[in-house]
Amino acid sequence: MKFNGRNVHISKKARIGRNVKIGDNATIYDNVEIGDGSTICNDTEVGEPLAPYYHQSSYDNPPTVIGPDSLIRSHSIIYAGCTIGAGFSSGHRVTIREHSVIGVHCSIGTLCDIQGHVRIGDRCKLHSNVHISQTCSLGNCVFMFPFAVMTNDPIPPSNEMSGGYIGSFTVVGVHVVILPGVRVGENCLIGANSVVRRRLGDFCLATGDPAKVVMDIREYVVMSKGKPYPWMRRFDRGMPWEGVGFETWMSQSHNK
Amino acid sequence: MKFNGRNVHISKKARIGRNVKIGDNATIYDNVEIGDGSTICNDTEVGEPLAPYYHQSSYDNPPTVIGPDSLIRSHSIIYAGCTIGAGFSSGHRVTIREHSVIGVHCSIGTLCDIQGHVRIGDRCKLHSNVHISQTCSLGNCVFMFPFAVMTNDPIPPSNEMSGGYIGSFTVVGVHVVILPGVRVGENCLIGANSVVRRRLGDFCLATGDPAKVVMDIREYVVMSKGKPYPWMRRFDRGMPWEGVGFETWMSQSHNK
Amino acid sequence: MKFNGRNVHISKKARIGRNVKIGDNATIYDNVEIGDGSTICNDTEVGEPLAPYYHQSSYDNPPTVIGPDSLIRSHSIIYAGCTIGAGFSSGHRVTIREHSVIGVHCSIGTLCDIQGHVRIGDRCKLHSNVHISQTCSLGNCVFMFPFAVMTNDPIPPSNEMSGGYIGSFTVVGVHVVILPGVRVGENCLIGANSVVRRRLGDFCLATGDPAKVVMDIREYVVMSKGKPYPWMRRFDRGMPWEGVGFETWMSQSHNK
Repeated sequence: MKFNGRNVHISKKARIGRNVKIGDNATIYDNVEIGDGSTICNDTEVGEPLAPYYHQSSYDNPPTVIGPDSLIRSHSIIYAGCTIGAGFSSGHRVTIREHSVIGVHCSIGTLCDIQGHVRIGDRCKLHSNVHISQTCSLGNCVFMFPFAVMTNDPIPPSNEMSGGYIGSFTVVGVHVVILPGVRVGENCLIGANSVVRRRLGDFCLATGDPAKVVMDIREYVVMSKGKPYPWMRRFDRGMPWEGVGFETWMSQSHNK
Repeated sequence: MKFNGRNVHISKKARIGRNVKIGDNATIYDNVEIGDGSTICNDTEVGEPLAPYYHQSSYDNPPTVIGPDSLIRSHSIIYAGCTIGAGFSSGHRVTIREHSVIGVHCSIGTLCDIQGHVRIGDRCKLHSNVHISQTCSLGNCVFMFPFAVMTNDPIPPSNEMSGGYIGSFTVVGVHVVILPGVRVGENCLIGANSVVRRRLGDFCLATGDPAKVVMDIREYVVMSKGKPYPWMRRFDRGMPWEGVGFETWMSQSHNK
Repeated sequence: MKFNGRNVHISKKARIGRNVKIGDNATIYDNVEIGDGSTICNDTEVGEPLAPYYHQSSYDNPPTVIGPDSLIRSHSIIYAGCTIGAGFSSGHRVTIREHSVIGVHCSIGTLCDIQGHVRIGDRCKLHSNVHISQTCSLGNCVFMFPFAVMTNDPIPPSNEMSGGYIGSFTVVGVHVVILPGVRVGENCLIGANSVVRRRLGDFCLATGDPAKVVMDIREYVVMSKGKPYPWMRRFDRGMPWEGVGFETWMSQSHNK
């Protein structure tokens, strides 16, 4: 029922791939490129123009690229200037602001708010309601849970933008705050409700406010489950080593 | 102005009760049943299809039931497979994912995110921006305040789904996190910003991270207000004992 | 592309100023007044009717005023009865409930939820996802960061509404909770993740749960930046002293 082309507006300057479905009430703006096999659900806006659009008659929309086989769920807004890799999946009402670069096979959950000029690696999974401030960046295979926030203003209000970084394979719990400019290493686990105020190295299990390193994550024992971290040996859904095994995949690739 | 039938799409396989109003730009999908006297506001989607819809031509939408006299406010999305009781009320931009079961006279506030396979009893009131993970459940007359979260993954990321439970009459404050699989008893009050990491019995006033039992809630004294908990004797708006009194209602019913 | 008048519904009882742009799928209800030079983006609802609209045939929508040169971004909902000053700017999917009064040159970010009967002074800047409960109020030039919440119910659930107050020039960090009825002074800085449980005077740097005064903000030294607070001498974007300097502006005006 959705894909009847009702009230759909596609710019003549957009390039729509093969086998793309576009839902009712969707708007695809100038200079958007949608990869083959993608589904753009209803009430979405792709290539949302930047602020000058509202008052400059000469405004030219920067190019927006949505990779092939992506699924953008309803009511999402993706600004112009974003580049998103293949196999992307969004929840509902996601906002991705301008000039963000997102790798392949990422998933950005319902109500997430990616504030622009953000860099997200491959295979990152953001659950609902994650907020990433401008200029922050993530490595690959990062997991973030609801209401996790990366901030960027060290002395608010200011014109500084000091976005932090989260390393590959790190898991960020619900309601976690990463303060401006803070660098979190690879393979960390940040417990629910923590506030990360200082740099964390690799393999840290950190909790609290201020977040303190409780132990090396490789030493963390969960009753009846042994040592569940790093998680890559026991979890592969949506990961590049799915069905192959992490070690095999690692040894075959230098795609870290 | 809203109910002019503009850009409204109702599946021929949907059953719409008597005196139902459906707002502009709304979509009612296959196998949805809307009870008599309900109002479905503009830009809503009821019976949102599940993921296979996007690629399976044989997809058959599971049945969705919205009880009579419900009010679903604008921009909300209710997935297929949900069953919602009479007198339901939603805020704006609510998402209720598939196969959730919600009792009678519940209210789910603006921007709430109910993740699917959730069970909510009768007369629960969720304020704005509450997030309930898959397989969590609530008793009756539970109140949850903004940004409260129930999580479900004990060793993230994993394929486990260990949803917790909140007992009847319990009140969950703003920014509270309930960790996976945790059971909160009846008649508790969880203070703002707490993280509930372990099981709580009935009548607990608990605060902090980790949430600790401060006292029996029946002993809690508020200046000039006496002992305000359990709250059922002093508050009845929208409750089944409204105008009757809690004790009378309790003694007349076994509807606990 | 946006401003083609497709699927736009404007009440005959609305007054639209000169040089106003209204996006596709927008609805402007009865008794709304939009100031000259404003832009109302697509999928917005301005003057959203109050609850009696759904069942009273005699319902009369209270007046709604949007000041000149405002920009209301897409998918936002502004209820009837609100009065918003000139130069207002909203993010996407903002909800502003009934009878809220907002001063000039305010900015309310994406997904903010202003619950009604709220008073916000001039030049306040709310980042994304701020939640303000009914009857709360803000002075002028207040900054609030994502997931900050002002609550209003001292013994939930109750029918009391005890909204707090935040004084002018105060900055409220991410994930901060202001408890019901709490008054925060002018020129304060509330650190990330704090819970403000008691009244705070002016010039407090407060952090923690419960938020405690760490120092007078005028004594706060940031490495290589000196004493950055009060912030008005070093930041002027969007402020009335922009290009003039705070002291000069202060001495020229009694517009505090």
